[in-house]
Amino acid sequence: MDPLSTKFAALADPTRRAILARLVKGETSVTELAEPFAMSLPAVSRHLKVLEHAGLVTRGRAAQWRPCRIEPSALREVDGWLETYRRFWEAGFERLEAFLAKDADAAPSRRRKLRKRKLPSSRK
Amino acid sequence: MDPLSTKFAALADPTRRAILARLVKGETSVTELAEPFAMSLPAVSRHLKVLEHAGLVTRGRAAQWRPCRIEPSALREVDGWLETYRRFWEAGFERLEAFLAKDADAAPSRRRKLRKRKLPSSRK
Repeated sequence: MDPLSTKFAALADPTRRAILARLVKGETSVTELAEPFAMSLPAVSRHLKVLEHAGLVTRGRAAQWRPCRIEPSALREVDGWLETYRRFWEAGFERLEAFLAKDADAAPSRRRKLRKRKLPSSRK
Repeated sequence: MDPLSTKFAALADPTRRAILARLVKGETSVTELAEPFAMSLPAVSRHLKVLEHAGLVTRGRAAQWRPCRIEPSALREVDGWLETYRRFWEAGFERLEAFLAKDADAAPSRRRKLRKRKLPSSRK
């Protein structure tokens, strides 16, 4: 699996996102991390391994508690991917239509179809 | 599966992300969409169903070609989730340490450990 897909897959779970939300408050041991979750330690460890594999969490070398730490910079790649699409939802429907209209000479029938539709973001 | 997890799971595949990258250029039929991929029509249709289920793609009602259309606004939820973490990679390591230092009185040993480490984002 490519690194970006691995990251998206790791984030596709509410428990793993809750673990990241906890770790953003500071390093913690697995035991401490597991407390708020109705989940066994091995189950939490499995989730941590998925996050580690995706580069979103690292484990310290301290012999006894091996602190879990979030690596927020690993999310930059996800943010970079979103960048291409951000301009569309930020600018709303008119911008998207303007963008698509560039190709309109080659496909005028599609342009007519587009005009009949509305993006959810254009609803007020 | 919750809607955000469904979106992350849908994005965890390079072919599905390539489909979105194609659709950002305008509506297209499934046949047209399948052309650049070394993939059967049913395989592309399966990927489209995953994207539709996540709300990232909609299909038109036009009887013959049922145009596929990207819904960039569906990515807002993903962007909103990232927002919590963005401030950390934008501000770099010092900011994260400052944030963690708030809890330092309760766990001074952890603070010392943190000072020995560097985030990748702090490398120049």
